[in-house]
Amino acid sequence: MSCVFCDIVRGEAPASFVHQDEDVVAFLDIRPFTTGHLLVVPRAHAVGLGDLDEDLGAKLWRIAQRLGGALRRSGLRCDGVNLFLADGAAAFQEVFHFHLHVIPRFRGDRVRLRAKPRTPDRGELDQVAAAVRDAGL
Amino acid sequence: MSCVFCDIVRGEAPASFVHQDEDVVAFLDIRPFTTGHLLVVPRAHAVGLGDLDEDLGAKLWRIAQRLGGALRRSGLRCDGVNLFLADGAAAFQEVFHFHLHVIPRFRGDRVRLRAKPRTPDRGELDQVAAAVRDAGL
Ligand SMILES: [Zn+2]
Ligand SMILES: [Zn+2]
Repeated sequence: MSCVFCDIVRGEAPASFVHQDEDVVAFLDIRPFTTGHLLVVPRAHAVGLGDLDEDLGAKLWRIAQRLGGALRRSGLRCDGVNLFLADGAAAFQEVFHFHLHVIPRFRGDRVRLRAKPRTPDRGELDQVAAAVRDAGL
Repeated sequence: MSCVFCDIVRGEAPASFVHQDEDVVAFLDIRPFTTGHLLVVPRAHAVGLGDLDEDLGAKLWRIAQRLGGALRRSGLRCDGVNLFLADGAAAFQEVFHFHLHVIPRFRGDRVRLRAKPRTPDRGELDQVAAAVRDAGL
């Protein structure tokens, strides 16, 4: 099955790289929310949190953390940074090769995150927490 | 200075925990986007990516990855998962003690992420990538 990020990793599709090592690459999103919007991607194909090797995930995070610092030092507009992972179509995943977004943010950038937060009482929160704990790590 | 997450870590404010170890705690967000919305938090106070110890960051990520799996197994509605970090007020940070959101997602959950993506040409992407690379990791 064709995977555009596997193609990029193999050098068979173009990308504007900001980092490459033996396990991880990072390159610019071609549909940036803001200028400097990056994707941190494992070379080995994985779809989501469920099939991503945990050590590799931790390495992706480290690269993303450092790239957040690089964005702040880069001269691009960057008053803040979002790290964002979409695991599954229901969570806005569109390319099904794992990628961690690193998004420079600034006032007036027109990025919006909207939800309808509830305010459950402590009894409900405790019940939900028990359900998550019971599932185990 | 008072910090509500430091209070929670010290046991001086209530929280519904799903994980606690010597470095990291995770508990339910009291204003959940969806049922099961979690926060993964370092015990040691840090504000953002710039002052968070990198090894501790990698550990937070590992816990978040496992909690994503726990949510999928929990019986709560969870067809997908978002991991989300807000580093700085311009990036939607509201509590200035580092926290990584783990958000169960499902069709019709009314969570929305909106932006005005651009489609820069490859020349512009390459120039931006150079600026980020020049900043260094
Ligand atoms: Zn792939
Ligand atoms: Zn604190």
